[in-house]
Amino acid sequence: MRHYLDHAATSPLRPEARAAWLQAADVVGNASSTHGAGQDARRVLEESRERIAAMLGCEPIEVVLTSGGTEAINFAIRGLWAARRSGAEDIVMPDAEHHATMDTVAALVAEGAVLHPVAVSLEGRIPVADFAAALPGAALATALIANNESGTVNDAAALSQASAEAQVPLHLDAVAALGHLPVSFSALRGDAPAGAGLVALSVAGHKIGAPVGVGAAVIARSARIAPLLHGGAQQRSLRAGTQDVAGAAAFAVALELAERERASEGDRLRALRDRLIQGIRARIPAAELLGDPVHRLPGNAQVLFPGAVGESLLFLLDMAGIAASTGSACQAGVAEPSHVVMAMGRSEQDARSVLRFSLGRTTTDADVDAVLAVIEDAYRRASGS
Amino acid sequence: MRHYLDHAATSPLRPEARAAWLQAADVVGNASSTHGAGQDARRVLEESRERIAAMLGCEPIEVVLTSGGTEAINFAIRGLWAARRSGAEDIVMPDAEHHATMDTVAALVAEGAVLHPVAVSLEGRIPVADFAAALPGAALATALIANNESGTVNDAAALSQASAEAQVPLHLDAVAALGHLPVSFSALRGDAPAGAGLVALSVAGHKIGAPVGVGAAVIARSARIAPLLHGGAQQRSLRAGTQDVAGAAAFAVALELAERERASEGDRLRALRDRLIQGIRARIPAAELLGDPVHRLPGNAQVLFPGAVGESLLFLLDMAGIAASTGSACQAGVAEPSHVVMAMGRSEQDARSVLRFSLGRTTTDADVDAVLAVIEDAYRRASGS
Repeated sequence: MRHYLDHAATSPLRPEARAAWLQAADVVGNASSTHGAGQDARRVLEESRERIAAMLGCEPIEVVLTSGGTEAINFAIRGLWAARRSGAEDIVMPDAEHHATMDTVAALVAEGAVLHPVAVSLEGRIPVADFAAALPGAALATALIANNESGTVNDAAALSQASAEAQVPLHLDAVAALGHLPVSFSALRGDAPAGAGLVALSVAGHKIGAPVGVGAAVIARSARIAPLLHGGAQQRSLRAGTQDVAGAAAFAVALELAERERASEGDRLRALRDRLIQGIRARIPAAELLGDPVHRLPGNAQVLFPGAVGESLLFLLDMAGIAASTGSACQAGVAEPSHVVMAMGRSEQDARSVLRFSLGRTTTDADVDAVLAVIEDAYRRASGS
Repeated sequence: MRHYLDHAATSPLRPEARAAWLQAADVVGNASSTHGAGQDARRVLEESRERIAAMLGCEPIEVVLTSGGTEAINFAIRGLWAARRSGAEDIVMPDAEHHATMDTVAALVAEGAVLHPVAVSLEGRIPVADFAAALPGAALATALIANNESGTVNDAAALSQASAEAQVPLHLDAVAALGHLPVSFSALRGDAPAGAGLVALSVAGHKIGAPVGVGAAVIARSARIAPLLHGGAQQRSLRAGTQDVAGAAAFAVALELAERERASEGDRLRALRDRLIQGIRARIPAAELLGDPVHRLPGNAQVLFPGAVGESLLFLLDMAGIAASTGSACQAGVAEPSHVVMAMGRSEQDARSVLRFSLGRTTTDADVDAVLAVIEDAYRRASGS
C-alpha cells in the first residue's frame, strides 16, 4: 500500500475535475475562433473563468490563465518589472521565497534590477515592518502567502496594505495557500490605489486536484504589466496562446470543491498532522517542527531530524511505501540544502536533515500510522548511528 | 450537422490521445520527486519524451516540453536572443511569420534588437537567397516551415543550411507543418556547427489531435539559449515548472498516429482540398487560390473572394454549419487585415476578402459538399451585390 504524503508537490486529480476536463476536451474549436464551434469552446472557457474568479474574489477579466504556477509567477514578476516606473530599480523579496520567484528575480538582477532582500524570522515569517521599510521607491515587491516548504503563513493583508501605502506594486504567490487558506484578491487588495498594492496573485491547479498544466495569474485591472508570452490578443493581450479550455474547466471544478471543503478539510488535516508531529516527537525526542507552529498550513509538517541525512530518510520511507519530500519538488535532484530552512537561521547541515510531510485530500489515519511505524528505525539508520 | 474546416486553428482530440491523457493523469506524483510515486510519473514522462523525440528526429534530451507552440516560439526566440553573441543585434525574420514570432521579435526590438525583415514572394515563399543575404552577423534568424494561413511550404533545409554556413542560430516554427510534412530535426540540422544553423524548432500538440496546452521546443544540445520560465532544474534548467506528464503522454500518442498516417492522409486531404478549390472556382470564377500551388500543406485552401467581406462570408458559412477562418485564430476578433496576405503583395482590401479552409483528420466529402452547396450564394451576399 502506498502512503502519499507529498500533496504539496502535487495532489491527486479529483474525479470531478477529471470529468470536467474530459467533457470540455471533446468540445472541438479554438476559443478565439468566431464560428459556432469556437463560440462553444469560448462559452465553456468564459464560464470557467467566471467560476475561478468567483472563488478567487476577483473579476473574470482579471483572471489570466497560464500553464501553471511557475508561468504565473514568472509573468507577474517579469511583467511588473518590464512596466515599472521610470527610475525604480529595487525588487523587494523575502529570502524564503519559492525558486520560481527567486530565479526570476535573479534573472532580472542580471538585467539590472537591484535586489532588496528581507530576512524572515526563525519561524520563517516575513516581518511586516521590515518588509514595509524596504518598499519606498521600489519597482515591485513579491511575497509568499504561505511557504511551500515550511508551511508558515504570512500576514498577507498587512504586506498588501504596506505595499499600497508605499505605492509599490505587489505580487503575492498564493500557490501553496490555495485551497488551504482564504485567498480573496479583492479582500487582500482592499482599497489600494490604481497600479499599487496587491496587483498580481499567482495560483496553480495541480496543488488542489486539477490537472498539471493549468494555473492563473490574477492581474488587477489597474496593473501596469507587460506580457511574458507574446503573439495574440487572447486574455487582454497579456497571455498569448491558444487557450486551454479543458484545463480551465477542470481548474474551476477543482477550485470550487477545494473551497467548499476548505474549513472541514482544514480541521481534519490539522488533526492528522498534529498526531503525526506528536507521534514523531514521542518516538524521536530530538525531532523538531520547523516553521511557525500557529500561522501554518493545516496539512504541513516540516520536521528537522537532527543528524540524519534527509535523502536517506526519504529513501527509507519510500521503501516502506511512504512518499514525503526533502523540500520543493522543483529542486529535487539538485544537491543543494533547502534555502528556506537556512533562511530560518538553521545550519547547512540542519538543512540537509529535514523532511516535509504534506497532507491532503486523500490522507487518512493509515498514512500517519505508516509513518509512525517506521520513522524511529529510519531515523536510526539515516543517522548512521 | 457541423462541418469543421478549421483544423489549422485547432484539431479534434484523438481518442487514443484522450485515453493516454486519462491513464497518465491518474498517476499520482510529481515527476521531479524522488520517491516511488514521483518515479512512476517520471517513467511515463521520459518514455513519452523518447517517443516524441523519435518522431521529431532528435535526442530525448533535446525535447523541452512547453505549454504549447506560443510558449515554444517565445522561448526559442527570446532565449536565443538573451544568449546571443556579444555585439550581434540583428534578428532575421521573414514578413509572413505567425504573430507569436512577430510579437516576440517586436518586443525584442523595443529592447534594442534590430529587425532585418525578408520579403516573401507573391506565393508567400521565403526566397532562400534573400534570407541567406540577411544572415551574416545576425544574432539569430527565424522562419516558418509552413505558413499557417497561406499553407505555403518553405525550403526549410535550404534555410537551415544557409544559417549553418553563416554561423547564425536558426529557429524553425514547425507548428503548422507538424503531422503534414516530414519534420526531422537532425535531418534539417544536418552537420551544422555547434550553436549555429538549426538549433531550435517549435511544435504544438493540439494541431495534430493532442490536447491544448502541450507543445515542445526542440533545442539542440549545442545551442546557447536562456530559459523563458525560471524556477527549477527541470528539463536541463531550460523550462521550470511541474512537468505535465499527462499532456506529454497524449502528445506522444497523437504524434505517433499523425506520423503513421501522414502519407495516406496527405493524399486523401489533397484530393479533398483540390476538389474544394476546383468546386469554388467553378462556381465563382473570380475566386483565387492564394499561396504556393505546389509547395503547399495538403489540407490548406486559402482563397481570395474578390470584393467580398471575409467576416460576412465566415458568418454566412457559419449559419450553414461550416467552420472556416479569415486567418489565424490567435488574431480572431482583432479587426486587422491579414499581414500574411498583404506580405504576398495583396491590397488591404483583398486581405479582408480571404477565407482559409483547413482540412484534417475528420474531414470528409460531405464537408466539401457542404461548402460547395452554399458558397456561391454566400459570396453574392457577402459582396453586397
